[in-house]
Formats: sequence, structure tokens, C-alpha cells
Amino acid sequence: MANLESLKSALAEIKDLQYISAIIGWDQETYMPPLGAKERGEQLGTLAGLIHERITSPKFAQLLEQAEKEVQGMDPDSTEARLIKVTRREFERLIKVPARYYQELSETSAVAYSAWKEARQQDNFKKFQPFLAKIIDLRREYADYFRPYEHIYDPLLDEFEPGMKTKEVQAIFDELRPQQVELIRQIGARPQVDDSALHQYYDEQKQWDFGVEVITKFGYDWQRGRQDKTAHPFTTSFGLNDVRITTRILPDYIGSALFSTMHECGHALYELGFDPALARTPLADGASLAIHESQSRLWENLVGRSLPFWEYFYPHLQAVFPAQLGNVSLETFYKGINKVEPSLIRIEADEATYNLHIMLRLEIEIALISGELDVRDLPDLWNSKMEEYLGVVPPNNSMGVLQDVHWSHGSIGYFATYALGNLISAQWWEAINKDIPNLDNQIRKGEFQELLGWLREKIHHHGAKYEGKELVQRVTGSGISPKPYIQYIRQKYGQIYGL
Amino acid sequence: MANLESLKSALAEIKDLQYISAIIGWDQETYMPPLGAKERGEQLGTLAGLIHERITSPKFAQLLEQAEKEVQGMDPDSTEARLIKVTRREFERLIKVPARYYQELSETSAVAYSAWKEARQQDNFKKFQPFLAKIIDLRREYADYFRPYEHIYDPLLDEFEPGMKTKEVQAIFDELRPQQVELIRQIGARPQVDDSALHQYYDEQKQWDFGVEVITKFGYDWQRGRQDKTAHPFTTSFGLNDVRITTRILPDYIGSALFSTMHECGHALYELGFDPALARTPLADGASLAIHESQSRLWENLVGRSLPFWEYFYPHLQAVFPAQLGNVSLETFYKGINKVEPSLIRIEADEATYNLHIMLRLEIEIALISGELDVRDLPDLWNSKMEEYLGVVPPNNSMGVLQDVHWSHGSIGYFATYALGNLISAQWWEAINKDIPNLDNQIRKGEFQELLGWLREKIHHHGAKYEGKELVQRVTGSGISPKPYIQYIRQKYGQIYGL
Repeated sequence: MANLESLKSALAEIKDLQYISAIIGWDQETYMPPLGAKERGEQLGTLAGLIHERITSPKFAQLLEQAEKEVQGMDPDSTEARLIKVTRREFERLIKVPARYYQELSETSAVAYSAWKEARQQDNFKKFQPFLAKIIDLRREYADYFRPYEHIYDPLLDEFEPGMKTKEVQAIFDELRPQQVELIRQIGARPQVDDSALHQYYDEQKQWDFGVEVITKFGYDWQRGRQDKTAHPFTTSFGLNDVRITTRILPDYIGSALFSTMHECGHALYELGFDPALARTPLADGASLAIHESQSRLWENLVGRSLPFWEYFYPHLQAVFPAQLGNVSLETFYKGINKVEPSLIRIEADEATYNLHIMLRLEIEIALISGELDVRDLPDLWNSKMEEYLGVVPPNNSMGVLQDVHWSHGSIGYFATYALGNLISAQWWEAINKDIPNLDNQIRKGEFQELLGWLREKIHHHGAKYEGKELVQRVTGSGISPKPYIQYIRQKYGQIYGL
Repeated sequence: MANLESLKSALAEIKDLQYISAIIGWDQETYMPPLGAKERGEQLGTLAGLIHERITSPKFAQLLEQAEKEVQGMDPDSTEARLIKVTRREFERLIKVPARYYQELSETSAVAYSAWKEARQQDNFKKFQPFLAKIIDLRREYADYFRPYEHIYDPLLDEFEPGMKTKEVQAIFDELRPQQVELIRQIGARPQVDDSALHQYYDEQKQWDFGVEVITKFGYDWQRGRQDKTAHPFTTSFGLNDVRITTRILPDYIGSALFSTMHECGHALYELGFDPALARTPLADGASLAIHESQSRLWENLVGRSLPFWEYFYPHLQAVFPAQLGNVSLETFYKGINKVEPSLIRIEADEATYNLHIMLRLEIEIALISGELDVRDLPDLWNSKMEEYLGVVPPNNSMGVLQDVHWSHGSIGYFATYALGNLISAQWWEAINKDIPNLDNQIRKGEFQELLGWLREKIHHHGAKYEGKELVQRVTGSGISPKPYIQYIRQKYGQIYGL
């Protein structure tokens, strides 16, 4: 196994460089003084170049090929065989695309990002249009490197959700869409929920402390992580024993920091749960973006927006904010945090409407990449789909097609993983409740150890050994399906809105 | 100049990796969760290996040689010629020593450090003795790689103070020592200073804020730096526009944070003053450790412990701490922060005694490296020199020969730079006061721009273009000399102690 060992050394070095890149990126978002930005960009570029150089070196290709021979005949589910398989997948992804392409994408994105910011500020889609067109061309070129493909969008999707096909996602979404649209229609016909209690002044430090109390109960290990403040919350890993989260606190809305803290904690618990045997390999990673999102959403929504959770935590929260919540009943608070309201902005969307924002984006991306839609016609299509799915039409493009940063970054192919993550979180939840029948009662007592233990054993432990849909199959016995999610939101909102 | 340009690209990448190493090292000391340590060590090791690999690659050697040809005939003081010269120096330093040596030194240091900690805790020199002996052997081996040398200690000194010879340092110290010993004897015969006002409870946040006020006045740019808390204060650079400092605050002694903040700010102002044209090259660095220390000491002592400085700042400090200092006169406070007291511990030593701690260490290092002193006899020699120079004898080895961490790290050769920095700071001060005759009056008004401007122009701007002693010669017209320092402390303490 000499070649396998050499390959592992090479992979350990690459993984270290990726972790290092994450550290200096985290510092950039948290503590870097303003004028350090230009040099930090150079340093990130140097690291990216080194990582690319290491993986695409002839020596690496040779090592990988020889190691593949060494693991032939081994159990294909063994860590070694899976390590080689995942390494090959990532290697092919890199080696098939010329370095020049990434250079061009990165340069195009840089100017596209500036153009997008200006366009959004001035509500002027035309300013962004030529740059988006160029990015679409580049992403089509990317797909070309992976010919033959079944669907031109497949290679883009595969970058974020390995093994998943466009056709599969479309089938899932086609099943989901009409039912979710119908649910929203029904909710809209009912008396609406009052969430004004959430929109009051809440002291920032007390919000911070309450969030810390919650995720400490979840099992977030402060010896192996920390929380800091950033403009946009995120989770980042510097190793198996240093997984950090960030949050943002709004003084006039308690929902923001609270649910983002639980969300990021869900991501972090995943990364903190990898089998130590996977350290410094590509397997020390999430199975896919959808699986990652299923973890954050599970803690944020299935746990954090549930009634049992608040039966335990609401008295605590009332004690922290007696002036704001002392006279607000648990029921009112619970309904408030679960208010459904078709809205224009994806990141503000609730559980009942979020997936529709995603489906709209996926359909548009596919149409753009396949050439069925011209960038010029994008705003009209956006607005008509908003009306069709959510019953609302953006008053301008800034609140419509220009709202997301993703396309300007050249990121096309991963919106779908957000919705898939939601669906999968409900699949886990169904399986968990079969294995832990009294889970609700545990949560009602603020106990999460058994839940976390289940996730650790069934999901976290494996890291990236299995592809996303494969992992779902192994754990739940079925493929990715919208049924548990539909059932979950029907039941939840049926109860809240009296459907 | 194609080769020069290629060399510059290679150097930029190496410099980036060094900055990156500094960032993740800073994070380790400031914010890293406890269990992240092992992986952080691996990451630092990976970076060190990469940097070594880059510099010692045949391609780099070839580029350097060809670039040397390109700059032949250029002004030897031009940035290009100096860049090549310094690169050659650092290259030779690395290439002459086998990679195996650094591996062995690093492994030995790791166990030596543990042994030292235990030995110090248990006051048991014997536990450290064999490890120190091994380190001395390794440092002798290091010197061997640089044969022929004039003195076996020269290559060790050269690592920290390029171009400086053991003989030169000895000559300087031989001139300094008797005069400093005599001054301390005279001070000891006078009535002693009462500094009890400094040793009271001082609120930590208020100490922090006052330190920030002072260094903001000095000209520390918060757009290009920041301050955090660590166990041991230090300065670190992540680029020309991100130079950070750290401090430690003691609640029962106001001197610690205050002077360490000014000290680190002095280091930081140096690094923030490099000519932008030196960016991402080895010239974006201090000329030497002694020159670096001359900057920190200048701000800490020549400025920060001067009477004009406190004529401006003391009323501010009294306003912040009225209970502690309201009834303490400026004179009492000024004398308190300048109290001379021969003590056992180097890091607690005052301006009048500090250099003697250094001279003792240098003499011992030279004796050990040259083989004149056996490690076994070290504690006795330490104690007798302490008595001879400072008139005090450690009651145990923990407070004597075991007090410093340096030797356990394998760091032998740089103690001298601390004392040289003190001497040089007084040389600068003499030159500055010639060029800015009313400097005292400016400081009395809290104005430091002209002082900082002088340092920027004469010293900071050049980065590592000139070696330490060469820079002193260019700026002051003389070599490194103890005379200005002797004159400075004689005058200062003569006034304070009425000699």
C-alpha cells in the first residue's frame, strides 16, 4: 500500500492548504482591518494556485493511478476504496478544465460582481445583463468539458451535488411544486398570524447569550469551535477539531440571530462529527451541499421552530426578555416564528414558501444554460414565475431578479441544493422519529443527546464517503423524495392555520 | 530583466506563504479553540515545508543566479540590487543546512520545551540539562555548515543580526558593561523610589482604552492594524497593510499593558512604514532584530518613559483613574515608572539593568557554543555572574538559569539583539534631537507626527535594504556604539536619583 500511503500524504498537504485558506478567509470576514483586503486577496490567490498545482501535477496523477490498483479487490465501501473513488472524482473535475478557464471565470466574476452591485443599487438590469451573459457562456463552456452528458446542466449540478442528475431534481420538484403552491393558497385564505412581538428592540448581548445557551444544549463543543460576528453568517472548518460559526444580530428582530445561530450550528455539528479516521483526506467533508443543508435545516426548523422545543426554551427566553415577551403567550410566539407570507426575497422566506424561490431559480438556470432563454428576457420570466408560484410580483428588478449575489460570482448549479436540503431534512426526521419514538418528549425537556447521537452515527460519521442520494438511500431506504416534507409542512401549517 | 521578474514572482509567492503562516499563527495565539492545536501544528508544518521546498528548488537557484547577472552593473544601492543581495544571503543560509537538520532541531526543541517547563516548575535543572546539551550540539552543528568562520558563534548571531560579528558585539558590550554596573552601584547607594501607586487595582477596559489613546496619538493606523489580547504580547505582519499587535493586561499593575502596548506599537509602526515598492519581497522586513528592537524601545522608553510624554498624558491618566492617581504627583509617577531595581528576572528589568541580563546570557551562550563551558556548570556560572553584574543571586534555578524559554526552543544567538536595540534606540534619539530641536516640546503637546515622519524617512522606508549596522552608519554617521545610551541613562537616572 506504499502508493496509497504516498497519495494520502499528498492529500493531507492539500487538505491542510484548504483549511489554511479557510482560516485566512474567516479572518477576512471577522477581524481583518479594512485596508488588508488587497493583500489578503493575493494570499488567497496564491493558496488556490498551489492547491491547483498540487492536484494537477503529473506526480499526483501517477500516484492516484497506482493507488487505484492497490485498492482493487478491496471492499468498495471501505474507507480506502471510497477515498480513492472520491479523489478520482475531484481529480477528474479539476483536470478536465484548463487552468485558463478558472482564471477567466475568476476575472469575469470580479467585474460581474461590481456590475451586479451597481445594477442592483440603481435598479438597472441592463448594467448586469452583458456580464451575466458572459458568465452563462463560461458555464456552458464548463459543461462542454464534461461531454458527453445527459443534460447540459448536469455537470454544473454535479459540482455541488455529486451524482445527482438534472432529470432527477426536476422530477422531485415537479412533484413538490403543485402541492406547495396549493398549500400556500390555502394558508392565504385563512386569518393571518401576528408576529409583531418578534419585531421589537432586543438587546444584542442578550440575544447572543441566548443563542449560545441553545446551541450549547444542542451539543456544540466550545473546546472545538467558537462563534464570531460577520455581515453574513457562515460555518467554516479549520480541521476536525476547529469548526467555527458566525452570526449577525439585528437589534429590532429577534428571529435573525436566533435561527441563523441554530442553522450554522447544524452545519458545524455535521463537520464536528466526522470519523477521526477521515482526518486530512477529501472524505473529511460533507457528502454534498444538500446533505449539509439538511443538517442546518433540521436544527433550525425541525427542531428550532417546533412546539416541543419552545415548550422548553420559551420560559427561558421570556425570563431574558420580560418586557418584550412577558405578556406574549407560547402559542402566539410559536405561530409568530412560523408565520407564512409569500414574499419577494428568498433569504427572508419561511418554510412553506422557500422551496418555490429555489424552483424558480433552478428553472431559470436550466433555461439559460440550455439556451432556451435569452438573458435579455430574464426579468420578465422571473416576474411571471413569481406571480405563478407565490402570487407576488416584484415592483422592481432589485427586489426581483437582481436580489441574489450568486450568479455574479459565477455560481450556477447549486440553488437546487437548498431545496433538496429541506426535503432531506424531513426524510431524516421521519427516520429519526421511528428510531427514537419519544424524541418530542426529550426535546420538551431540552435533551438533544440522543438526537445528536443518531445524526452522528447515521450521517456525520461517514463524512463524504457516500454521495448525497446514496446516503439518503442507505439511511432511509428510499431515494430523495418530497413526500415527508410535504407531509411535514401540511401537518405543521394545517395545525397553525387551522386548515 | 525577465529573470528578475520571474524571481520576483517566486519571491512574492514565498512571502505570501510567510504572511499566511503569520496569520494562522496569530489565530492560534488569539482565538483558536483549545482542541485545534494539534491540527494547527500540522498546518504550520505544511507551510514551513512548502516554503523550504520553494526556496531550495533547483529552479529557484537558477533564477537567482540569472537575476544576479541581470543586476550586475546596476547601482548597488538600488532596490533591485539590494533585493538580489538579500535574497542571496537568505538563500545561502537555507541551502547550506540540510533539511534533515531543521527536522531534528524541531523535534529536539519539542521535547526540550516540555522538559524545560517541567524543570522550571520543579526547580530541577538536571531535568533540562541533557536536552540543553543536545541543543547546544545541534547549534554547533549549525555553525559548522558555515565554515570557515571567524568565531563559531558568528553564524548563530548572523541569523538574527545579519553582518554582525561576535567580536564586534563583545567590544560594544565590554565598553558598556563596567559603566552600567557602576551606574547601578551609584543608584543603589541613593534613597530608593516608591512605585506603590502603580501597583493598585486598575480596571482592565480602562487600561485598554488608555493604551489605545496613546498609540493612536503615536500614529498607529487602525485601518491597517488591530490589537488583541494574548498571554505574551507580540507584533505580527500579514502584509504591508495589516500589521497587528497584541497585549496583556494585569489588573493589579498598570505598567505592564501600558508599556507593552507602546513597545509593540513601535514594532508595528516600523512594519507599517516600509516602502510600498518593497511589497511581497524579502525587503519588506525589518533590517535586523536589533533595528526592530530599537523601534519598540524608542517608543516604549525614550518616548513613553520620558517626562515630556507624561507632562502631556499624565492628566489624562489621572482623569481615567482618579481614585488611584488623583493624589499622586507627576513627579512621583514619573519616578515610579523609572524605578531602578536590580532584579532576578530579565523581562521585569528596568532600563538601567536590562542590558546586564543580556550580556550575561550572551557570554554564557558563547562559552557553551565554543565548548569552554559545560552545560552541567551553567547554574553556578549564571549565579556568580548575576552577583557580579547585578548584585543579586537567584534563590533557585527556576528564577535563575531556567527563567527564559529561548534555549528550549533552540534559539541561541539572538539575546544580544535586545541590548543592541537599546543602544541603537539612543543613537537614533541623539540624531533625531539634532534634526528636530524642539522635539521635547512637541511631545509635551502630544504631537508625534514629526518624530514618526523622521523614523519613516530614515529607517522604516528602507525595510531590509540595508543590514542593521550599515543602516546605523548611514543614518547617524557612526557604527553601533554604547556611548549615546550610556549618556542617556546617566543623565536620566542622575536626575531621578540625584547622583
